[in-house]
Amino acid sequence: MQVIRRYVSNSTRQKHTLVLLRHGESEWNKLNKFTGWYDVALSAKGHEEAKAAGTLIKEAGFTFDVAYTSYLKRAIRTLWHVLEESNQMYVPVNTNWRLNERHYGLLTGLDKNETVQKHGKEQVLVWRRSYDIPPPQLTTDNEYYPGHDRRYAHLTKSDLPLSESLKMTADRVMPAWSNEIEPSIRAGKNVVIAAHGNSLRALVMQLDNISEDEITELNIPTGVPLIYHLDENLKPIPHKDAIAPLSGYYLGNQDEIRARILGVKNQTK
Amino acid sequence: MQVIRRYVSNSTRQKHTLVLLRHGESEWNKLNKFTGWYDVALSAKGHEEAKAAGTLIKEAGFTFDVAYTSYLKRAIRTLWHVLEESNQMYVPVNTNWRLNERHYGLLTGLDKNETVQKHGKEQVLVWRRSYDIPPPQLTTDNEYYPGHDRRYAHLTKSDLPLSESLKMTADRVMPAWSNEIEPSIRAGKNVVIAAHGNSLRALVMQLDNISEDEITELNIPTGVPLIYHLDENLKPIPHKDAIAPLSGYYLGNQDEIRARILGVKNQTK
Repeated sequence: MQVIRRYVSNSTRQKHTLVLLRHGESEWNKLNKFTGWYDVALSAKGHEEAKAAGTLIKEAGFTFDVAYTSYLKRAIRTLWHVLEESNQMYVPVNTNWRLNERHYGLLTGLDKNETVQKHGKEQVLVWRRSYDIPPPQLTTDNEYYPGHDRRYAHLTKSDLPLSESLKMTADRVMPAWSNEIEPSIRAGKNVVIAAHGNSLRALVMQLDNISEDEITELNIPTGVPLIYHLDENLKPIPHKDAIAPLSGYYLGNQDEIRARILGVKNQTK
Repeated sequence: MQVIRRYVSNSTRQKHTLVLLRHGESEWNKLNKFTGWYDVALSAKGHEEAKAAGTLIKEAGFTFDVAYTSYLKRAIRTLWHVLEESNQMYVPVNTNWRLNERHYGLLTGLDKNETVQKHGKEQVLVWRRSYDIPPPQLTTDNEYYPGHDRRYAHLTKSDLPLSESLKMTADRVMPAWSNEIEPSIRAGKNVVIAAHGNSLRALVMQLDNISEDEITELNIPTGVPLIYHLDENLKPIPHKDAIAPLSGYYLGNQDEIRARILGVKNQTK
């Protein structure tokens, strides 16, 4: 019976494979700081996580035709490790600011525990886990205002965030999906996306039709490839190792992955 | 007087800057083997050369909007080092098989000195330094035939080389220039190209209108950024540190660079 299901799943319905990957641990993940658009490097552990992700992808035999990533080096460096370890550095790399992490506004650079002490656990949970409440905005003279950075010089002022809720993040991520990534997948290309906790939430929210309440509870671990098999309408085909509400599955040791997911939840506890 | 010349050169005529870069030393450069399309990694020295190139580019303040490179990891890794060292990893990376090194056919994998002993210095010099005489062709059952490699699966059989002269290399490089790179430069983008000895020869041959006889004598050192200032018609503006027949100049210690250029010439001596 299992064999028949697999046959149906793999040959008749499955049309596309999409690989999502949250960057490895960064120097600021390690310091437990709100990072957002700050362009921090991977930590030594993050480099190792990214290489391990590449090894998993190589061993599972995933090949890519095109890669998408953000403008932030922690995601780009993660992608480079994956392409290098899986011996497919020739894959073109499209960078897009729309895949950046959520912008944390005035929380950027603050230690998460300090922020809890200052604003209260409830308020911080609201900022971190509500769908549509952004943290306090930064002003344009703030060092973290993206308008000071030449990589964003081509954006209009209205595109430059002062602070973002998860909803605002999803709203600016989705044009990258609709205009660039989705057409590539429909054209038959194998796509890998290396991005961030919240920009990936926006993508899986769309793919798996996840509710606003559910998405705020969803944690995507760093450095673990998340594999989606899609049918011809780009509808995800639930995998036996999928962890609800996702239809995709994480590559690697499933117990370890569940432990990591729990780890993300405990950051402000 | 110097000041006035510079003012004229920089403000009135100079419109674009183009940075060319030959990959750092590879494992097969070190072994003195004909490499061509074989996808060999950088040597430890090559990684260092590439990082040093990135530092030079950072110190000189060059910024890029788009990068072009080949399908071969020694060029791609060189580019990645440059983008990482100069803190502009967000630059999109377009890979193109047309920027690959010349395909050396049946010489691929052979030690250059052994080839000299086997075929004679004159014959090897003809293969290496003539403009339009390709080395012996490999057959499609040869392990080095590019048709066995999935990265070239989208090419027609007539595009897959069995062996290339410098002329054949230039002929397949130029569409990448005309169709992709030149339009980017005309659109006002700062372009960096990380490629190979012979694909870069093809590009500078076009830029500086170098003759067939002259181009075969031109040596481009590994890991040294070659800077072209171009006017509004994409005509190169000769730089005071340019080494004929190039109008562009190499970044870095000029004595060291001249020594490196001589080093390339001595490989089969």
